Amino acid sequence: MLVRAILDAKGHGVATIARATPVATAAARMQMEHVGALVVSADGRRVEGIIDERDIVRAYVRYGADLSGKSVGDVMRGEVISCASDTPVRQVMAKMTRHRVRHVPVVDGGALAGIVSIGDVVKSRLEELELEKDVMRDAFMART
Amino acid sequence: MLVRAILDAKGHGVATIARATPVATAAARMQMEHVGALVVSADGRRVEGIIDERDIVRAYVRYGADLSGKSVGDVMRGEVISCASDTPVRQVMAKMTRHRVRHVPVVDGGALAGIVSIGDVVKSRLEELELEKDVMRDAFMART
Repeated sequence: MLVRAILDAKGHGVATIARATPVATAAARMQMEHVGALVVSADGRRVEGIIDERDIVRAYVRYGADLSGKSVGDVMRGEVISCASDTPVRQVMAKMTRHRVRHVPVVDGGALAGIVSIGDVVKSRLEELELEKDVMRDAFMART
Repeated sequence: MLVRAILDAKGHGVATIARATPVATAAARMQMEHVGALVVSADGRRVEGIIDERDIVRAYVRYGADLSGKSVGDVMRGEVISCASDTPVRQVMAKMTRHRVRHVPVVDGGALAGIVSIGDVVKSRLEELELEKDVMRDAFMART
């Protein structure tokens, strides 16, 4: 299965945020939009970085009360682990495991085309398992 | 596959924290111990709650600068989605998807026996895939 299949099911929308936005706003948007990460981008196409819940916790540990004066650009990760629409999901799973990231932006031809979360991967595997179960049940029913 | 198989591979240790601990200490421990969640427990056996990175972000959004005065008990979730060692991994995946949680404490006979993260689930699936590949390669080699 390719990343494309996950995006086709969940949509290609990605929550993005500008570098200069205060960290507190980023945190509020994650909560409001029910996402665990925001892609940092000025134009919604070029990926400049990523900020997730772990980055905010790390920043809180580092800056404490001073975090209120920090912007997304101060605490984001600039080196983004990404994939393409035609990357096998298995390869994305390996990236998530190896780099301990839970969100992998999908970039096609230099432009942001979606995002795959570790939750999406587990959900798609669960659907595969349900499908396998249905196929086996039908095969069994056909024999009896 | 059962949850037990994941615990046998990763170990049964669980990072726990007391209810009265400041939230900032919980955040620092998550970072230091490379975990995304801490189980709230006074004795390391009975589960009183759970606190993860998302809970800390949510608390930061809610309390802002006042978060420094809050304790784990103020921001933890008291209703914990848990499983047992003999729960099928597939069922844990369904719980993670349905309740949008990334960490499921394992409780056997009322006592904490481990914790399974969404990352553990993906890692174990990846290992299954590698195994399937090896089996197929061996089967192919045997034929040629």
